[in-house]
Amino acid sequence: MAQSSFQEISASDFFYRNRDIAGFTNPSRAIFAAIRELVENSLDAAESLKIPPDIYIRLSTQSKDKKDEQVFKLRVEDNGCGIQPRFIPSAFGQVLYGSKYKLKQMRGTFGLGGKMAVLYGQIMTHKPATIMSSTGQAKIYAFKLMIDIQRNRPIIMDRRVLVNKEKWRGTIVEFYIEGDYLRAMPKILEYFKQTAMVNPYSNLTFVDPKGRLYKFSRVTTEMPDPPKETLPHPYGVDVELFQRLIYVTKEKNLLEFLKNHFHRIGNITAQKFLEFSKLSPTKKPKKLSHEEIVTIVQNMKKFKEFRPPDASCLSPLGQDLLEAGIMKELNPEYIVVNQRKPSTYAGHPFIIEMGMAYGGEIPRKNSFQIYRFANKIPLLYDEASDVSYKVINSINWRRYKVSPDLPIAIVVHICSTKVPYKTVGKEFISDRPEVRREVANSLREISRKIHHFMSKREHVNRERKRISVFAKYLPRIAEFSTNLAEKEKQPDIKKLIASVRKYGEEE
Amino acid sequence: MAQSSFQEISASDFFYRNRDIAGFTNPSRAIFAAIRELVENSLDAAESLKIPPDIYIRLSTQSKDKKDEQVFKLRVEDNGCGIQPRFIPSAFGQVLYGSKYKLKQMRGTFGLGGKMAVLYGQIMTHKPATIMSSTGQAKIYAFKLMIDIQRNRPIIMDRRVLVNKEKWRGTIVEFYIEGDYLRAMPKILEYFKQTAMVNPYSNLTFVDPKGRLYKFSRVTTEMPDPPKETLPHPYGVDVELFQRLIYVTKEKNLLEFLKNHFHRIGNITAQKFLEFSKLSPTKKPKKLSHEEIVTIVQNMKKFKEFRPPDASCLSPLGQDLLEAGIMKELNPEYIVVNQRKPSTYAGHPFIIEMGMAYGGEIPRKNSFQIYRFANKIPLLYDEASDVSYKVINSINWRRYKVSPDLPIAIVVHICSTKVPYKTVGKEFISDRPEVRREVANSLREISRKIHHFMSKREHVNRERKRISVFAKYLPRIAEFSTNLAEKEKQPDIKKLIASVRKYGEEE
Repeated sequence: MAQSSFQEISASDFFYRNRDIAGFTNPSRAIFAAIRELVENSLDAAESLKIPPDIYIRLSTQSKDKKDEQVFKLRVEDNGCGIQPRFIPSAFGQVLYGSKYKLKQMRGTFGLGGKMAVLYGQIMTHKPATIMSSTGQAKIYAFKLMIDIQRNRPIIMDRRVLVNKEKWRGTIVEFYIEGDYLRAMPKILEYFKQTAMVNPYSNLTFVDPKGRLYKFSRVTTEMPDPPKETLPHPYGVDVELFQRLIYVTKEKNLLEFLKNHFHRIGNITAQKFLEFSKLSPTKKPKKLSHEEIVTIVQNMKKFKEFRPPDASCLSPLGQDLLEAGIMKELNPEYIVVNQRKPSTYAGHPFIIEMGMAYGGEIPRKNSFQIYRFANKIPLLYDEASDVSYKVINSINWRRYKVSPDLPIAIVVHICSTKVPYKTVGKEFISDRPEVRREVANSLREISRKIHHFMSKREHVNRERKRISVFAKYLPRIAEFSTNLAEKEKQPDIKKLIASVRKYGEEE
Repeated sequence: MAQSSFQEISASDFFYRNRDIAGFTNPSRAIFAAIRELVENSLDAAESLKIPPDIYIRLSTQSKDKKDEQVFKLRVEDNGCGIQPRFIPSAFGQVLYGSKYKLKQMRGTFGLGGKMAVLYGQIMTHKPATIMSSTGQAKIYAFKLMIDIQRNRPIIMDRRVLVNKEKWRGTIVEFYIEGDYLRAMPKILEYFKQTAMVNPYSNLTFVDPKGRLYKFSRVTTEMPDPPKETLPHPYGVDVELFQRLIYVTKEKNLLEFLKNHFHRIGNITAQKFLEFSKLSPTKKPKKLSHEEIVTIVQNMKKFKEFRPPDASCLSPLGQDLLEAGIMKELNPEYIVVNQRKPSTYAGHPFIIEMGMAYGGEIPRKNSFQIYRFANKIPLLYDEASDVSYKVINSINWRRYKVSPDLPIAIVVHICSTKVPYKTVGKEFISDRPEVRREVANSLREISRKIHHFMSKREHVNRERKRISVFAKYLPRIAEFSTNLAEKEKQPDIKKLIASVRKYGEEE
């Protein structure tokens, strides 16, 4: 009978059994996912210290086997902040343990990617992972680790302490993984290319199994400020979160509680909100009843006077960088970019940035080329499920004199303290209504600009046709009239044509 | 600094923070997801006893608020196997606890859906869920529960024991949830309709918030055999799984170990495999070194003589039922169905069944209509990311005289002891190479049949045109010739036309 066999499994075991949901679906995606997860951890680690990242990735194989699926050694080195030795084993050997569970713009969000890479490597090769790290102090710590999947705990096979003569700082991860590099290669190279495009202050060096070197060098050492941790915005607070805040707060009255635990609630807003909720500012937060908490949370959604979230905790690309990136990558004839004001979903501020480019080197296909980024990482899989794709395909493009068979590229970047990914593998953005609305508004704004350009272009084309008619027949009329008048010299028709031309001379 | 702030979170907290990955993305999807998760648990619970399911679902609201997002009371009653009282709190109040972690064909697979529904309800309304259940014995147990999300443990608010006078058996779940029913309605009704189509032995009754009753009645009481638990197939075994089996085995030698812990390894196959791996049949499993284990697991993939998985643990629809379901639902002009032999991915047997239907009541759109099912549940979201969608769109349809603008519907059903979903929300099937191959092979087979039909149809059309030319001009020629010959009576041309006709008379 079904009831006699209930069991509990660990989080590690859950992801071992369901690795598809973390992006480790097949040998080709697995090798892509392992590389990107480690590279993104490295970018975060360097950015947290405002150091331009230097990341070295090497994928190598000993076997001469020509089979599709081989065992590779993957090594990723960075110059990031390093990890203190007491955190290293769990940071790589325990699922749902990490430094990423914060309201802060980061590439990683699930505290899962690095461990999944190690876990996937282990279940196929049964070899331990090696982690070396130093925070730049006197010592370097080296661990050999495996994961006890059923208990979700790291197993330390070996631990060494080395003298850090050169004050090296960073992390090196090395482990073995079964994968299909040949199939993964195009996506991996595209990943590096797009990553370089939105992280222009990074050096990425990739050595592939054939020994080929791909180098993506930084073009600037200007760094954005490291992301700041932020407080939850009241519009996105649920009862669970509110209770957690009450549990940890040291504030003695509701007024101070609201001011110090929520994003952009000042004295006046707090007072107005408490009035709106018919609660005394001096009430102790820990004395609120369950009913009062539910009412407050519901009122937080209804109250109209909370200020919108502050973008200072977000680090968008900015219109200039976005435009420069698109120009460099796609070299289009015409480009429009747009950055929306910060908005919020479920308490998390986010910003949508968008660019649309036409012509030039953009190829003509049956559909728009869509480039998707989230917190400065490219999203390369499952495009059709992304909210941007859905919005783009629900627009009546004819209104903007645009059709999908034109050479048009659309670049969408969402940055947020918490990107609403639909899968743990960070493949696409889910269809949150607030995000959809912002994407749609942004798209409409750039579409209007592109419409203006397309209309002008259409007008110019129409004019060119009109002029070419004049240019074709006027000389004949001139010739005929000259003959008819029995004159020798034909009248100058250039002036005549110039007088009907609305736009400048064509080249 | 990043390193000073590592933390561990519970599985429950993980899914609370990342509810998008469990399908609870927005108020519309959340209400859909809550209903389907509970209905699928109920279907599993009834099928496990081979009882035709009777499921009653009611969604009601007290509020007169005309806002999109309202608080609803959701109640789901079934006549399934019931849950023993000691398991009830964790079965509804602890994530990653359940009866679904088995190699067995079930609708639920993650042990997550029911809890996510309760959790989502709780974080928005802060009201407890009520669970009543009986296994048909003397007592009915009723619990009021909430989830301690940070600890991932149930909180029992109230527990009652009732006398079960009428020997009722089943489970009733009732809780409050915030949602957007108006937006979710079309998907919910479509879900019931398609569920009824592939579960023809079920009664589904749904009462919506306006009091409208939707009834989907069973057309048969014939039930498939309950799914059996099966052993892992050697082709899909990894080192982790092999070690777990060694840990639990009571077998004293490798020969017996292989025979008793793997799917379809008999005496002869086991001996051949051990010879292939150069291992003694009498070796003790617990004495295997790590290197030997890795070698065995690698050899399991290379060894060609393992028998394919046995379909007896799977419960596909079967070609007749599939055809009947399609006929009933779509009423097409022509239909082909196909069932593939069982195959395996990562040790899990699976079967692909497919149907293709043309014309009749199938509307003409710009793309094929795709109906997706997995273990007899319909998949309604994120179609474009599904492996079937990808395969269907990668086929050169011209070769089969088919184009996407024809009125064609394609039905794909995968059944497996473990469906490779890409998301915990069970929206779509991931792109496992073995699954892709089977879907592609199945599609080619039915496409060849549809090609035959389309060719014949084209031929008939061409003939009709040819005949219509004869039919148009022959009477005139006859008339002209009759006049020319100065005769009165025209010759009978019907015989002549019949003689050039290759196909029967048109209606």
